[in-house]
Amino acid sequence: MKTLAALTLAAAALTFCAPAAAQFAKTEDAIKYRQSALFVMGQHFGRLGAMATGRMPFDAKVAQDNAALLAQLAKLPWPAFSAGTDKGAPTKARPEVWAEPAKFKEHAEKMQAETVKLAAAAQTGSLDSLKAAFGATADSCKSCHDSFRAK
Amino acid sequence: MKTLAALTLAAAALTFCAPAAAQFAKTEDAIKYRQSALFVMGQHFGRLGAMATGRMPFDAKVAQDNAALLAQLAKLPWPAFSAGTDKGAPTKARPEVWAEPAKFKEHAEKMQAETVKLAAAAQTGSLDSLKAAFGATADSCKSCHDSFRAK
Repeated sequence: MKTLAALTLAAAALTFCAPAAAQFAKTEDAIKYRQSALFVMGQHFGRLGAMATGRMPFDAKVAQDNAALLAQLAKLPWPAFSAGTDKGAPTKARPEVWAEPAKFKEHAEKMQAETVKLAAAAQTGSLDSLKAAFGATADSCKSCHDSFRAK
Repeated sequence: MKTLAALTLAAAALTFCAPAAAQFAKTEDAIKYRQSALFVMGQHFGRLGAMATGRMPFDAKVAQDNAALLAQLAKLPWPAFSAGTDKGAPTKARPEVWAEPAKFKEHAEKMQAETVKLAAAAQTGSLDSLKAAFGATADSCKSCHDSFRAK
């Protein structure tokens, strides 16, 4: 059973990481890429948060655009956490990203799923729906950061 | 005539920069945002370039995905070149970005238009079409960098 579990884990890690190897010319490119994608995401998510928390007037069209973009961007960072990119440039990614790939993948997929729901919520034009979906997405960010990002 | 030209320019600059002011909490966020978006674009453009120049085997689906994403990302950086973001964090953006906003806008729009054509070319599945559109897009990047980015 232990062997099977290890093999399953290895296969999951391979599927998750394989496409990345060929995608980045240098380790530091992969690190900078994921940081860049996550920073851009954070800015757009922040605008949704400003509307969800009343710090910015709610504008349904702006919310829709930001949420749709966020759901697209949310697909990007993951292949850049490929094997060997735990160092090579300053990174807050913890060793657990590579030590527990199945768990990391689960978190990454959860967040992507939440951004899809957030985009759908924004599409309805309801601020209440946006607030609920924003909260769920924020929880998915925090949960992953708590486990996989250094303070 | 000079006053009219100046007003037209000012109006163009305002239209170009106005949405940005409210979008970024801090100057350094705007600078980091545009650098991040352009870096992510550069990576995806680089993959298209690798296929266009034969350094990577041509894969029509991969080319389509990268080009479609690039055309979306190409819309992002420009509001982050808002007034007052010429300093506040390390930036290669030259003062001309803010001194010649109409010219900068023209370059930015040219690049966006080329990425749309590139996405359409990738959609055809023809490597020759991809090569031609890649070259035109690369020219639009270089032309803007030559005028507006420090060496």
